[in-house]
Amino acid sequence: MQPLPGFRDFLPQDCATRNYIFDRWREVARRYGFVEWDGPVLEPTELYMKKSGAEIVTQLFNFTDKGEREVAMRPELTPTLARVVAAHEREFKKPLKWFSIPQCFRYEKQQRGRLREHFQFNADIIGEDSLEADVELIALCVDLLRAFGFAANDFVVRVSDREFWIDFLRSQNVPEENWQEILQVIDKSEREPREKTAAKLGPLAEPAFQILDGKGTSEKLDRVLAALRVRGLADFVEIDLGIVRGLAYYTGVVFEAFDRGGKLRALAGGGRYDNLIDHLSDGAVSLPAIGFAMGDVVLGELISENTEAKVLMAGRTLEMDRVDVYIVIAKEEHRTDAVRQLQALRESGYRVDYPLEPAKVGKQFQTAGELGARVAVLFGDEWPQVKLKNLNTGEQSLAPHEELLRRLEQLLGH
Amino acid sequence: MQPLPGFRDFLPQDCATRNYIFDRWREVARRYGFVEWDGPVLEPTELYMKKSGAEIVTQLFNFTDKGEREVAMRPELTPTLARVVAAHEREFKKPLKWFSIPQCFRYEKQQRGRLREHFQFNADIIGEDSLEADVELIALCVDLLRAFGFAANDFVVRVSDREFWIDFLRSQNVPEENWQEILQVIDKSEREPREKTAAKLGPLAEPAFQILDGKGTSEKLDRVLAALRVRGLADFVEIDLGIVRGLAYYTGVVFEAFDRGGKLRALAGGGRYDNLIDHLSDGAVSLPAIGFAMGDVVLGELISENTEAKVLMAGRTLEMDRVDVYIVIAKEEHRTDAVRQLQALRESGYRVDYPLEPAKVGKQFQTAGELGARVAVLFGDEWPQVKLKNLNTGEQSLAPHEELLRRLEQLLGH
Repeated sequence: MQPLPGFRDFLPQDCATRNYIFDRWREVARRYGFVEWDGPVLEPTELYMKKSGAEIVTQLFNFTDKGEREVAMRPELTPTLARVVAAHEREFKKPLKWFSIPQCFRYEKQQRGRLREHFQFNADIIGEDSLEADVELIALCVDLLRAFGFAANDFVVRVSDREFWIDFLRSQNVPEENWQEILQVIDKSEREPREKTAAKLGPLAEPAFQILDGKGTSEKLDRVLAALRVRGLADFVEIDLGIVRGLAYYTGVVFEAFDRGGKLRALAGGGRYDNLIDHLSDGAVSLPAIGFAMGDVVLGELISENTEAKVLMAGRTLEMDRVDVYIVIAKEEHRTDAVRQLQALRESGYRVDYPLEPAKVGKQFQTAGELGARVAVLFGDEWPQVKLKNLNTGEQSLAPHEELLRRLEQLLGH
Repeated sequence: MQPLPGFRDFLPQDCATRNYIFDRWREVARRYGFVEWDGPVLEPTELYMKKSGAEIVTQLFNFTDKGEREVAMRPELTPTLARVVAAHEREFKKPLKWFSIPQCFRYEKQQRGRLREHFQFNADIIGEDSLEADVELIALCVDLLRAFGFAANDFVVRVSDREFWIDFLRSQNVPEENWQEILQVIDKSEREPREKTAAKLGPLAEPAFQILDGKGTSEKLDRVLAALRVRGLADFVEIDLGIVRGLAYYTGVVFEAFDRGGKLRALAGGGRYDNLIDHLSDGAVSLPAIGFAMGDVVLGELISENTEAKVLMAGRTLEMDRVDVYIVIAKEEHRTDAVRQLQALRESGYRVDYPLEPAKVGKQFQTAGELGARVAVLFGDEWPQVKLKNLNTGEQSLAPHEELLRRLEQLLGH
């Protein structure tokens, strides 16, 4: 009777929440001029290994299909994006501003805010290496979260620069083969005791801690912050060189969004990956790119802890499923008349429900209320007139059935 | 560079088509008072075997997960519906009117109108055994197709009754263990030479052909047709006892929608399955039910062959991704001023794009046109005034930048 561990059933109320989140994501992305695309749920396993190394397979829902292909349910969308862009980039003028809302899958230990599937808003700007693209994308991330009712004291986007750290490692004469390991230590430093990080960093510890303690400056990040200030978004953003992000393929600005309370996992994360499309397409297509993702699970947790966000969501989800009109059949002899009107109202675009079986009038009105109907239309002794009842005000009136549509337009402002 | 065989990439234009189809499905389902739900993409393989027998496994994307569970990517939604309803039915007042738009997967030989994945609108009425529920659902099927611009000469819903055939088999003293086999022969009879069907049916051939040739009558189906006539939908429906549907679990009215040209696979199909929830829940919950499904692939083919449907779709998909305003930065010294306005316009709900990098004014206007912008706002020598250009009419005017929002409201009626 239960779904598989880590998978969700979406009962109507859950599905309304999901639709609400998707609607907000779509609305804000389109305000920013992004267009929606999508890829397959299933891809060759190799596509993910090529990006993330062989160890990714331990976290995949992967298998051999009936045609002996090694396939995996997508853990993320970026490899598919690289594949699709490499195949089709000539058809589009650059830069591409693309978004998507894929469901992604990872076989992981379950923990708070992490299931085995989630929906993940993705936005990417492809074919543009100017810093303005980075600013545009960070601004989108901020405005996506603001669209759910969150303010500057609810969340923060921490912005860093992978290039800054590469320059640092170069200045310290660290051999390139050690970079990735050191960057991962720095990425983890916020969550580890200082001594442990220091031991791992060795002679790099002192200069690295100076940077992490806020004494590092980055002219590039100062420009990012200034540009976000022009947009009025500086309060939602902090420069934080402690953000490195574990993945090897980031090449420039990286950022992560967190709740200010620091109780939840990251709300979103991303960065610039100028070499990945080239790598994944075996050099066939080389395009600079920057992107980020935001999951629905952690976002849902933050909404449920925030009064303003909850109120905003409740208003929208209530509207999503409610009917406009409920048809009350008080006398079964008028069922045919009622069904004729039902059809006419639906064809005019109204959401209308009615009793499929004979039922007491009181019970029908109760159902009308439960379905959120604004107006009940009663077919009974008054025929050929019908009785309209405004279910918000309780006001009742009679109308010839030929005028029902016009009267509803007045009542519902349709 | 290609997706797996039978899987689709959705480039922005394809995704707009998909969103258009989903939007219409949702809109019409809600007009009928249906609410949206969803289940997991992955379920225990057993759930599907329990419904369809062990042979279904040959058609599944199934595998053993890392927790040694036998799992399958859903080939259909009905088993999940039965599971979810059995687990939660007490939380809801009956009847349930639920719809969903799952992506479903089958490992099948590819052919026209059949890939290895498709999106499938599902609608079910649970907990109601009156014939009115059957009528309501068939009406929904008709109105879903009409919403895409199809008329009575484009498609037809053929309605039959499994019960009619069960009564026939009983009257001919056919033992119950042979019913399913004979029903499948009748289901296939339309697509096979008459002699072949006759040979399979033996002594049943003569009475069965009498029915198939239109001499069978069903009082129940006459009532269904009469009720659809009340709704003005009789022209979209035909009684056709040749429709049996292969699946064993149907118990009453069954129906399928086809293009009138008869060139495509079924557009939709479904029927009453009063025993399935009981069976799948091991008798824990027993509820009558009727449902149907409509896939996006065959529907998409029919749209692409129908002028009116194509025009309707083109209008909607064009609106889906276009921006309202393009900001033209004629002088880079005004970029900051432009970006400030950009943010204000987006926060007012407008869709606005702008050049991420310096570009020639002519090229910027070209981009504005390509993105479908209605208005271009130019920041240049006129500052602190901005120049507005209506891209439909070519009309130009100047406005103080503080009045930009108000002027756009006039131009765009927002």
